[in-house]
Amino acid sequence: MAQKPSIPKGTRDFNPEQVAKRNYIFNTIRGAFETFGFQPIETPSFENSDTLMGKYGEEGDRLIFKILNSGDYLSKANGEAYDTKNSNKLTSSISEKALRYDLTVPFARYVVQHQNEIEFPFKRYQIQPVWRADRPQKGRFREFYQCDADVVGSKSLWQEVEFIQLYDRVFSALKLEGVTIKVNNRKILSGIAEVIGASDKLIDFTVALDKLDKIGEEKVKEEMLGKGISEDGISKLQPLFTLSGSFESQIESLKTILSASEEGKKGIEELSFINTAISELGLSTARLQLDVTLARGLNYYTGAIFEVSAPKTVKMGSIGGGGRYDDLTGIFGMKNVSGVGISFGLDRIYLVLEELGLFPETVNKNVAVLFINFGDKEALFSLKAINKLRLQGINSELYPDAAKMKKQMNHANKRAIPFVVLVGDEEINSNTYTLKHMISGEQHKVSLEALITLIK
Amino acid sequence: MAQKPSIPKGTRDFNPEQVAKRNYIFNTIRGAFETFGFQPIETPSFENSDTLMGKYGEEGDRLIFKILNSGDYLSKANGEAYDTKNSNKLTSSISEKALRYDLTVPFARYVVQHQNEIEFPFKRYQIQPVWRADRPQKGRFREFYQCDADVVGSKSLWQEVEFIQLYDRVFSALKLEGVTIKVNNRKILSGIAEVIGASDKLIDFTVALDKLDKIGEEKVKEEMLGKGISEDGISKLQPLFTLSGSFESQIESLKTILSASEEGKKGIEELSFINTAISELGLSTARLQLDVTLARGLNYYTGAIFEVSAPKTVKMGSIGGGGRYDDLTGIFGMKNVSGVGISFGLDRIYLVLEELGLFPETVNKNVAVLFINFGDKEALFSLKAINKLRLQGINSELYPDAAKMKKQMNHANKRAIPFVVLVGDEEINSNTYTLKHMISGEQHKVSLEALITLIK
Repeated sequence: MAQKPSIPKGTRDFNPEQVAKRNYIFNTIRGAFETFGFQPIETPSFENSDTLMGKYGEEGDRLIFKILNSGDYLSKANGEAYDTKNSNKLTSSISEKALRYDLTVPFARYVVQHQNEIEFPFKRYQIQPVWRADRPQKGRFREFYQCDADVVGSKSLWQEVEFIQLYDRVFSALKLEGVTIKVNNRKILSGIAEVIGASDKLIDFTVALDKLDKIGEEKVKEEMLGKGISEDGISKLQPLFTLSGSFESQIESLKTILSASEEGKKGIEELSFINTAISELGLSTARLQLDVTLARGLNYYTGAIFEVSAPKTVKMGSIGGGGRYDDLTGIFGMKNVSGVGISFGLDRIYLVLEELGLFPETVNKNVAVLFINFGDKEALFSLKAINKLRLQGINSELYPDAAKMKKQMNHANKRAIPFVVLVGDEEINSNTYTLKHMISGEQHKVSLEALITLIK
Repeated sequence: MAQKPSIPKGTRDFNPEQVAKRNYIFNTIRGAFETFGFQPIETPSFENSDTLMGKYGEEGDRLIFKILNSGDYLSKANGEAYDTKNSNKLTSSISEKALRYDLTVPFARYVVQHQNEIEFPFKRYQIQPVWRADRPQKGRFREFYQCDADVVGSKSLWQEVEFIQLYDRVFSALKLEGVTIKVNNRKILSGIAEVIGASDKLIDFTVALDKLDKIGEEKVKEEMLGKGISEDGISKLQPLFTLSGSFESQIESLKTILSASEEGKKGIEELSFINTAISELGLSTARLQLDVTLARGLNYYTGAIFEVSAPKTVKMGSIGGGGRYDDLTGIFGMKNVSGVGISFGLDRIYLVLEELGLFPETVNKNVAVLFINFGDKEALFSLKAINKLRLQGINSELYPDAAKMKKQMNHANKRAIPFVVLVGDEEINSNTYTLKHMISGEQHKVSLEALITLIK
């Protein structure tokens, strides 16, 4: 095997700097999750296939990575599928496990499986990778992390309020100011569909409406017409296309539009509650916006729908999303457990922070000091000092070989290590250390105590 | 799907307490790795199959989890293997990717692939899960974490010295006192094999010797005889079986036994260097021991071999291991890169800490305070205070529903939340908070500032 090795497309290696930056985001999110009362769980990377299959639609099923059974897996292969070489049909007979596709279905499975150990309402967070056999492209990977927080077991709207605060808290902590938290409600969408006489075409209607930003009003109307929504109905939508202004003024318009829909009115009530609470509580750096075109995986959400946009100066899709789902655990036979949750898009947040230069300079926990190795006697003397530095939490190391001084200094330079310590006979005899600052070039002969103080 | 859901055998769900305890171990190890100058990398969960296959022996190949190709994977199936229903032969034509089996081979792949970006010697650590299709049993899982630190690019024995210090540092930080760091050297084993005329049977010889602890002297001798090692040779081994006492006295005996082997003498020299340095530097709580029967994956290691045993009071296999391998990256075509590294066994360390009651009481970052919800007005007032608490890093939450007081108090009890805050009309009017300590039952009406101070 002489060819240069590579990794599967859509996957990534992370070097120390990238790991440090990713951990900075993870730790910020984790810290906020915990102050908000969420507790961590972890689930296995692979689940039984029947836990995952059929939960994400046909497209989802195709994108789930399946794991081949071990041993003589063909001995249990479905005979008919085998004889007709039908990949699709054969799969379930030669693969019983599949890689996690998101964190929501495993969470639902967890809640049902452990329902007797869980004290509800249950606030959990989960930060783990997921895998999708999607076509890789810029910003879309086959292995990526999701960071989810959800509450199950309560229908209280205070949770929606807290999730908006949580988004604000995380992005403020990341110094990413000016994000927009867009909110909508499935009941508003249902109400509109009802009013225009398209209740049976709710999905088609919202899929089209969701594209307003991208394709514009005319194309959206064309699409709706094509899906069989009446001209008359579409004309009633007109006020929606021009809906703008403050949260409150949009709510007022919606009251008129939806006056004939009980469900629509319920949606307005919920949105008003959330908006009033957030106005009272205030947000640090984020802005709350009502967006009636927001749909996001509608067949899933039953109440609030959230989506977060990066500041307008950055070209980037949503950096977070979520909503309420009234029957999360129903797929596993546990009825009437309402849930609401949000997710953070790690990779996109990373790109945004990078583009805006928002990673702290100290994010990379680099080595602070390299001791030059002049030989075994000097190395031993150095290691005794290094022990003390490490106990003080100072990342320190000894160059392993007594290589040429220049090589060792170059090594410190290339790794951007700020301090170098030189220990020769003179230092050993006087129990001192020569500390060199790599940028200024300044050198001082100091005691161990002074060394620790200076480096700290 | 009405049956209760489950997870694949050999995998685990982790509840909040378990995640917190695992993170305590991870963070301790990570902290030590970083003060010793190691930097983190991460590699993808799955690699191209040809990166992994053939690197762990036949048994290893069988235990690697293979991922089924997406789409119509049978269209590229090997015709002959398909017609003869040969699972083993078919695999490579329907599966191009496989889950990581350990962290060492992916690291070697990383070093070769990124050699031009890496400044050598390269000290990296990696804490990620690996997967093995092993038969699950107590303490053996199909998904488990490895925590590895390695240096590549230097043959200096100071690195072996530092790894022993690193083991000592981690276990001392975990308050796990009394671990034994056993050390051996491949050259000692080669030397012995040479001396007894069994150089060509080095593997058989060491596999047998490795069992001394478990099956005793007689059975070891029988096994060696069975493998074709001469009676005469085995008789020369006698001093080995009775080798005991201090590191130094064992070294002295080895000098006699290995006087005729150049390689053996080199091994003695290396071990002496390490022992002398460690004696000078001292260890905090661990003990260094020479164990000439230690072999661990010998075909892999070329110099030092390490293994860590838990304190004798606990029945547990090794909780860590490692060694030097002089040609790690050779499998990917990059010659002459010597490496040395160690690994920590997370799951076993967890069991040992649990058994000895060594997890800190504060390991579980539980919610510190629950605000009782008496209605929307009170909830809003409470959330304003909760905001301030959270900004102070206090994990706090509002009970989402205005449920019966008793139910809310029970919730706090069951979750072992130490403080509860009650806010009613009286508190709102006087801008105070009634803080109840759940264990003592004591109650105080206090200001927000006092509330923060008391909870902290």
